[in-house]
Amino acid sequence: MKIGILGTGMVGNALGTKLVQGGHEVTMGSRTANNESAQKWASSAGARAHTATFRDAASFGEVVISCTGGMHSMEALQSIGPEPLRNKILIDVSNPLQFNNDGSMVLGFCNTDSLGEQIQRAFPFTRVVKALNTVNCDVMVKPSRVPGDHDLFICGNDAAAKKEVAKYLNEWFGWKIDNVVDVGDITAARATEMMMPFWMRLFQGAIGHPHFNYHIVRGN
Amino acid sequence: MKIGILGTGMVGNALGTKLVQGGHEVTMGSRTANNESAQKWASSAGARAHTATFRDAASFGEVVISCTGGMHSMEALQSIGPEPLRNKILIDVSNPLQFNNDGSMVLGFCNTDSLGEQIQRAFPFTRVVKALNTVNCDVMVKPSRVPGDHDLFICGNDAAAKKEVAKYLNEWFGWKIDNVVDVGDITAARATEMMMPFWMRLFQGAIGHPHFNYHIVRGN
Repeated sequence: MKIGILGTGMVGNALGTKLVQGGHEVTMGSRTANNESAQKWASSAGARAHTATFRDAASFGEVVISCTGGMHSMEALQSIGPEPLRNKILIDVSNPLQFNNDGSMVLGFCNTDSLGEQIQRAFPFTRVVKALNTVNCDVMVKPSRVPGDHDLFICGNDAAAKKEVAKYLNEWFGWKIDNVVDVGDITAARATEMMMPFWMRLFQGAIGHPHFNYHIVRGN
Repeated sequence: MKIGILGTGMVGNALGTKLVQGGHEVTMGSRTANNESAQKWASSAGARAHTATFRDAASFGEVVISCTGGMHSMEALQSIGPEPLRNKILIDVSNPLQFNNDGSMVLGFCNTDSLGEQIQRAFPFTRVVKALNTVNCDVMVKPSRVPGDHDLFICGNDAAAKKEVAKYLNEWFGWKIDNVVDVGDITAARATEMMMPFWMRLFQGAIGHPHFNYHIVRGN
């Protein structure tokens, strides 16, 4: 499969490397075609790893994954424009985090809006699915990094696209379909993005490392 | 033990009933001493159940539990004033939920502030511990309503008060101490209150009932 990845950070690296290892052709996009981080990634990831501009990476992908820093995702996507993303599934992995000088964080926007919704509004003909944004990138690509059952939360307006993404999460990374919980339309991105302050407290405090995840335990 | 409960809704009822059953003396406070819901609760809960104004309920309690509607909690607490709450543990269970006409909700404030922090700022000599606000009231008082391990999150500025509250959660309701996770100082109330939109999505959508909870699964 041909996959476009937008963003050259930790998340883009982890996803891209795992996808190339799985036999996919991956193009990592950034502002410029010769971005240093992207080229470093491509040379270490092997022959199926490519670099390009955001726009060319989006054109390349049958599926596109947005994992730029969440406060810059809209700018990156606007540089692509609607055509390369038309009718495609775009998996939005980012969270609009803003870090304070003391290491604490807030969300740049939340509660009545979300990054997932902003993307879907700006790209009405793209099938936006919010996914993977509630776990660390090591866990994203290797759920067994955390033992037993634990869950991912996806949302979006297109039911068929959500099913397809759940299948990809299973095939690409090994997530059990039963552990992918559909939390609703794209407005539910508010809810999953708003879990980040809690995630960060566990990461920086109670747990002290990023290799944990939520499991929703159900009574009746 | 003498416990003051502020609020006459579902949560106050559930907590008050369970505490009376456990042999505690409980006074349920509301705006007026003869509030109808409170009197109804007291007459069904038995001889150890009493009603009073917010102020008198707070004076009565060795520990005070705030479970008014989150957008009205500050008003209720202001009517008490600092003296009846001085040096006491106040367990803040409420979330600042605002419901829209279509049943959806937003938080009245979040991200850079929280109800827990507002209370602690207004009552600097009260030992505020945020707890129980991430589960439904049936689960609060009977964690076995949800099978296996699942977690509560507490936060506050006073480490000894948090330990004491964890012990109460165990003794009063049967929460395992290991399932009470300390997520930090009172600013962490932002994080746990911001989990409510996600909780509401599960409640109204993916799960469809309120008897579920989070378990944090840890890798290494």
